[in-house]
Amino acid sequence: MVDDLNPAPRLLMGPGPINADPRVLRAMSAQLLGQFDPQFRGYMREVSELYRGVFQTKNRRTLLVDGTARAAIEAALASLIEPGDRVLVPIFGRFGHLKAEIARRCGGEVVALEREWGSVFAEEELEKAVRQHKPRLVAVSHGDTSTTMAQPLTELATICRAHDALLYVDATATLGGVDLPVDSWNLDVVSAGLQKCLGGPSGSAPLTLNGRAEKRVLRRRHTEQGLRTKDDPQGDGPIIRSNYFDLAMIMDYWSERALNHHTEATSMLYAARECARILLQEGLAKSFARHALASKALTAGLSAMGLGLFGDQKYKMPNVTGVYVPEGVNADRVRRAMLEHFNIEIGTSFGPLHGRIWRIGTMGYNARQDAVLTTLAALEAVLSQEKHKVPRGAAVDAALSVYR
Amino acid sequence: MVDDLNPAPRLLMGPGPINADPRVLRAMSAQLLGQFDPQFRGYMREVSELYRGVFQTKNRRTLLVDGTARAAIEAALASLIEPGDRVLVPIFGRFGHLKAEIARRCGGEVVALEREWGSVFAEEELEKAVRQHKPRLVAVSHGDTSTTMAQPLTELATICRAHDALLYVDATATLGGVDLPVDSWNLDVVSAGLQKCLGGPSGSAPLTLNGRAEKRVLRRRHTEQGLRTKDDPQGDGPIIRSNYFDLAMIMDYWSERALNHHTEATSMLYAARECARILLQEGLAKSFARHALASKALTAGLSAMGLGLFGDQKYKMPNVTGVYVPEGVNADRVRRAMLEHFNIEIGTSFGPLHGRIWRIGTMGYNARQDAVLTTLAALEAVLSQEKHKVPRGAAVDAALSVYR
Repeated sequence: MVDDLNPAPRLLMGPGPINADPRVLRAMSAQLLGQFDPQFRGYMREVSELYRGVFQTKNRRTLLVDGTARAAIEAALASLIEPGDRVLVPIFGRFGHLKAEIARRCGGEVVALEREWGSVFAEEELEKAVRQHKPRLVAVSHGDTSTTMAQPLTELATICRAHDALLYVDATATLGGVDLPVDSWNLDVVSAGLQKCLGGPSGSAPLTLNGRAEKRVLRRRHTEQGLRTKDDPQGDGPIIRSNYFDLAMIMDYWSERALNHHTEATSMLYAARECARILLQEGLAKSFARHALASKALTAGLSAMGLGLFGDQKYKMPNVTGVYVPEGVNADRVRRAMLEHFNIEIGTSFGPLHGRIWRIGTMGYNARQDAVLTTLAALEAVLSQEKHKVPRGAAVDAALSVYR
Repeated sequence: MVDDLNPAPRLLMGPGPINADPRVLRAMSAQLLGQFDPQFRGYMREVSELYRGVFQTKNRRTLLVDGTARAAIEAALASLIEPGDRVLVPIFGRFGHLKAEIARRCGGEVVALEREWGSVFAEEELEKAVRQHKPRLVAVSHGDTSTTMAQPLTELATICRAHDALLYVDATATLGGVDLPVDSWNLDVVSAGLQKCLGGPSGSAPLTLNGRAEKRVLRRRHTEQGLRTKDDPQGDGPIIRSNYFDLAMIMDYWSERALNHHTEATSMLYAARECARILLQEGLAKSFARHALASKALTAGLSAMGLGLFGDQKYKMPNVTGVYVPEGVNADRVRRAMLEHFNIEIGTSFGPLHGRIWRIGTMGYNARQDAVLTTLAALEAVLSQEKHKVPRGAAVDAALSVYR
């Protein structure tokens, strides 16, 4: 028989998951309620309202998809893309490739725009592509943790609207840590996960959609047989190819009608509720500032150590930083020593960047001074042990002076 | 701002979710680990091994799908059904309809066999249908909570093998509470959820598949771009229409190669691990006996109250019981009074059975003497308040004498 669960006290400073706020973990230890219990339906309404705050939206349809962040991406794309639809996917990192791939699996005709990793698109480039390709949907990451870059998105919605394209934004990497005002930027559908700036575990994925997107989804509403009544106008669009990710059904489940679909993941809903509650108690602006400050301190420390920062710093997300592995240093051995000697996890990267950069997160619960300082001190010690010359103490001093 | 989470202390005696074992809730309050942390990969291996015990299988591919029970159903069907495949779905309740619907959305040509709710198929009927329709896949519920019936499955696999059909069994309702020896019954793919006999929260779905099923899935392996290496032989079958539910990728993620896919839902994995650990500590045979005894006590109590049991009792699942609402009694008002005065939830039913039967669960953590007795006492009191004449005290006495 296996032992009691006893995870090591890691400080998770990678690109996510990061440590969950202990208050979120405690919320998950609350006993369950039935999914149609009036109190539970009240909690669902509260979750919708809390995430309206987090997403800065008035969207009625603000809900959770029961799965990881990737589940919400697929729910959005599967419900919005009708087979044959042209879908424009700007790719500036791994999670752009992911959206292109999911869109293709959903039957979309994908037009992929690629930028070198470490850069982002000028909004004019995206606007030009929308004009040229006239997609039905544009699917883009706000931030891509694989490259640490955040794509400016303030203007894109306007051109999408002018060309009747919907705009889906994958905010997994940024929601709660970086400003993303869904309504004032006119974003049609936005989704995220809990395991980054929201300070929760992976496994529940907040999603919001506005009236324009809802209309396109409802065109494809095919209520499950045995649940359908005369009150359910069925759409004349092609059926969504997934039942689990059918946003028309998920919206009906979350609505006052509470039409049965999946069995809501109770404990993860408790977690999602607590994540949003903690964030809104702090205040969005304060959280954004806290993330920005942690990033400033971390990058100051890394620079003081003589390490090079990856990518166009103008567009770097504040919650994750790419840093070059110095010449002659084995990237994975450093990560292993950080983990084994300091219980600190930092990230590697994917594809072209694997072994070339580390990724250090300062997000959610871990966007904290002590976490930044400890990570810098540990990295300095490990690099020294690896015979890479670093000015001792400089990194922590530099970070501290940012915080002072 | 919303209040602290404070769920009422409900006793959940419906068809699931039921109360989670407090040890499972505690496990979820453990701090997170990174998904590629050696300790976490160790926990994943333990989860596979534990669920091999629960599923009574040696299947190497025994893993979790990150979503509710329905997510695993869809992962199985989306990965096994190639567009145009004939799929035989025996329907003896709502969850048969669900599988037929998901199979259609996956592009399957569904042959649906229907039986009246409250009955099951004779295995010979199913065998005849396999011979006649020659499906590529048979997708069937083991137990269907909507009707409380369990389908005998000991012979079906033999005929499926003879006709080169795969057999998928949805064991959401039964796993852990009713014997389902995956290997000795030759079931190809079986999935479940945590929220019934396993005594956990909804949101993680154990799934096991054998070599025959794996072969059919790997025919369709299309590793995500950017992760693909020469070590990944790609299949020549049609791409699976879902990324999230692509079992080829999920198997690679769970394998020693740990190929990136979703970010494993850490807390739900902790929960799933604890559910299986508790069950195996008790022992499968003891758990099955505990469920059977609870059912015997509950049905004795209900009968002593003069209430009629729904469906063919020979095939009733031990973990959920359908009971007719007596003439002149408002089913929903009784449920509401049970909830408001006793904090006890019992279930209604779907479609043709809504308002006609209640469903009372005795499963997982709640397959306990005290839970059965309390529920019977409360139901008796509420029925009396509703002016339905019941012999006072008879139900509890009858249940107690079963337990003695």
